[in-house]
Amino acid sequence: MPKLLDFPIIVINFKTYLESLGDRGMRIAKDAESVSNETGVCICVAPQFTDIKSIANAVSIPVFAQHVDPYPPGSYTGSISVEAIKDAGAIGSILNHSEKKLQLASIFAAVKMLKNAGMFSLVCAEDVEPAMAVAALSPTMLAVEPPELIGTGIPVSKARPEIVSESVQRIRSINREIKILCGAGITRGDDVRRAIELGSDGVLLASGVVKAKDPRAVIKEMAEAVLSSR
Amino acid sequence: MPKLLDFPIIVINFKTYLESLGDRGMRIAKDAESVSNETGVCICVAPQFTDIKSIANAVSIPVFAQHVDPYPPGSYTGSISVEAIKDAGAIGSILNHSEKKLQLASIFAAVKMLKNAGMFSLVCAEDVEPAMAVAALSPTMLAVEPPELIGTGIPVSKARPEIVSESVQRIRSINREIKILCGAGITRGDDVRRAIELGSDGVLLASGVVKAKDPRAVIKEMAEAVLSSR
Amino acid sequence: MPKLLDFPIIVINFKTYLESLGDRGMRIAKDAESVSNETGVCICVAPQFTDIKSIANAVSIPVFAQHVDPYPPGSYTGSISVEAIKDAGAIGSILNHSEKKLQLASIFAAVKMLKNAGMFSLVCAEDVEPAMAVAALSPTMLAVEPPELIGTGIPVSKARPEIVSESVQRIRSINREIKILCGAGITRGDDVRRAIELGSDGVLLASGVVKAKDPRAVIKEMAEAVLSSR
Amino acid sequence: MPKLLDFPIIVINFKTYLESLGDRGMRIAKDAESVSNETGVCICVAPQFTDIKSIANAVSIPVFAQHVDPYPPGSYTGSISVEAIKDAGAIGSILNHSEKKLQLASIFAAVKMLKNAGMFSLVCAEDVEPAMAVAALSPTMLAVEPPELIGTGIPVSKARPEIVSESVQRIRSINREIKILCGAGITRGDDVRRAIELGSDGVLLASGVVKAKDPRAVIKEMAEAVLSSR
Repeated sequence: MPKLLDFPIIVINFKTYLESLGDRGMRIAKDAESVSNETGVCICVAPQFTDIKSIANAVSIPVFAQHVDPYPPGSYTGSISVEAIKDAGAIGSILNHSEKKLQLASIFAAVKMLKNAGMFSLVCAEDVEPAMAVAALSPTMLAVEPPELIGTGIPVSKARPEIVSESVQRIRSINREIKILCGAGITRGDDVRRAIELGSDGVLLASGVVKAKDPRAVIKEMAEAVLSSR
Repeated sequence: MPKLLDFPIIVINFKTYLESLGDRGMRIAKDAESVSNETGVCICVAPQFTDIKSIANAVSIPVFAQHVDPYPPGSYTGSISVEAIKDAGAIGSILNHSEKKLQLASIFAAVKMLKNAGMFSLVCAEDVEPAMAVAALSPTMLAVEPPELIGTGIPVSKARPEIVSESVQRIRSINREIKILCGAGITRGDDVRRAIELGSDGVLLASGVVKAKDPRAVIKEMAEAVLSSR
Repeated sequence: MPKLLDFPIIVINFKTYLESLGDRGMRIAKDAESVSNETGVCICVAPQFTDIKSIANAVSIPVFAQHVDPYPPGSYTGSISVEAIKDAGAIGSILNHSEKKLQLASIFAAVKMLKNAGMFSLVCAEDVEPAMAVAALSPTMLAVEPPELIGTGIPVSKARPEIVSESVQRIRSINREIKILCGAGITRGDDVRRAIELGSDGVLLASGVVKAKDPRAVIKEMAEAVLSSR
Repeated sequence: MPKLLDFPIIVINFKTYLESLGDRGMRIAKDAESVSNETGVCICVAPQFTDIKSIANAVSIPVFAQHVDPYPPGSYTGSISVEAIKDAGAIGSILNHSEKKLQLASIFAAVKMLKNAGMFSLVCAEDVEPAMAVAALSPTMLAVEPPELIGTGIPVSKARPEIVSESVQRIRSINREIKILCGAGITRGDDVRRAIELGSDGVLLASGVVKAKDPRAVIKEMAEAVLSSR
């Protein structure tokens, strides 16, 4: 079993697909766990909020939230606090996904709150400059994910490889600690391999696994791509 | 045990208080259930998102979400779908709480999506005219809750009773099906009694129970106030 | 020249088109004024914020803002206050356009602030129920404008006439004072005529005039449709 | 008269105060212009949207907008386009003020759109890390403005000088082109002098001038502080 977070990493964002809800989400999480156990590759899942607790209780792989609000516990009806996702068993959260864009001030606050709670942050950015901006906030990981490629099956590592390589190079020159993921359009082992060749520390993906006919087979192919690139 | 929803009703909003998170939230839900069983009064709980499933699995009283996003299942990272809260065991959702204000178009969409899923909606409004506006969207329940009284311990039924009585009267004149709750500042049995005397169908409250030294005692006092007002 | 507001009315929303900016917006406003003077039909313009003052100074027809923020004057960098648009010469504001959706609480507050300033409000709604909800807030006018038809050239009066007629009928049954406009897809005199036949008090339109080759000719055709339907 | 932008600079944000609206805003702009002419210090004003055009037409000092939306001209009812503020005579815009916080993606887009239009951007940040993040987007200027000090009369240069000096030092180490302003609580010449001593290129202020009994006297005192620190 991998250490808490181990790179190259695969992070599976469940979004709010029906295919990832409840029992079906549990199935994908179990698949990810079994592939992780088999291959030793670190695979994280980011289930829907209402499924975090049951999935975190059932699997040993790292569980992330898909978003967290930058408010302390209290009078915040309908919000998601860092404390809530931690209590439910998550060890971190995705932030600023292009489907849940945040104010700069909120990303700053949420990264800090997660850090103070001993948790990880994975902040998304759509291009090189926003990725540099995110890097200045010192999250654990950042994912470069051009929104126009999300869900297309066209991997960023192929369509716009320079976004990945340039982000990696420029961010590494100022901060060597932040792990840089590659997102958008990742559906096959090849996309993962290419992402790693471009210098990234792994991938963030969603529909490529969640909407696959055989999610386990896709996860397996991706984990093997990670192994082969080590 | 009460029917699914039975009026006058008591709805307990857990907000994101530490006192209502995880095991402590479960404790309050169990207290609410045992009082409901003892008294026959319908008591609903609205736990934090990550606790909906475990609480809905553990208690027989109605469970609500505190909010739901007006999007279908799909590519909506970090959102809460109607399908997700339903799968987790909720039978409805609070909407437009003054701490989670929604666009008019979103309230309309969410009420409709909940209805299509066979679920209940409880929409908040801050004053008489917004309450009338909400009534036009035909939610199951609406709660009149002047934001300036929330968390003060000063009940709307005492501070601004005319908001409640006028909302009740004007809404009933055009739609007799919508149940009208009274929110903000409700902390004692007396506040519940007064709310019902003003013509409302129950109360929506949060800190009065969640932050009480003895939540069960407060719930009990409120349930007895409901009984005595029947 | 028509009285301040006179019905059936034509309201031209300039949006942020280049074709309605600066001198080109002034041209359209002057065209609207000259047609209004010729025909006696009330024609309002809603220029871009930066053009309100120069246009209101130059024409005698009513000028509206396209939006106003529900904040009092003060520490609200980047906002538009009721006082600002009034000082600039506007006599009212559009609110809750589907391209600038507002929280229910903000519509309520803004309508009240406009009224307190002696100004008019024109609140948009996308369907019958939201239109009923808006009516409960007692704006001066409301416009029923299904977002899916905006900019299509397919008039709501043709594509979904029942939205207009049903809104008119249901709103009139509870409030006879609110004027009801018909929006979305209005590009010809015929669309205006049909809108009035369905019981509405006029039209709210944008690209039909702003992006027309000859805006004055379109305005003229619409004003004549108003006249012929009187 | 100063060159287009010349540092150290003084930027006066009019917010939406009544004291800066219409004729009163024109008065402050004229005062700023006359002090600028007398002293040769670059003084910019950021009037309310509806006053940009008349003020830009009347004074020769640089005029900024307080905000701009990251949308192209088009179907964006109620928005402020870069083209609109440019047409009105502004040469740039403030962005992400703590009273008008923006998503990271929107700051990125707006800075780029302003640059493409040959205009200046002045992006606010509340702390050192967000300031570093903003710097990664390469705006013309950035202002470090801890929100808790805004409007207090307690200058950031006194209350939290390290935020300014640390921002200056860290940003200069990676990008020497961005001009760094000091905001929040600036009300006297002394605050300006201290801000410049801490390494900043000027100040962004609002109520210190706008709500002063004698705005011209305050502007004069500040301009002289700039001169004395050269």
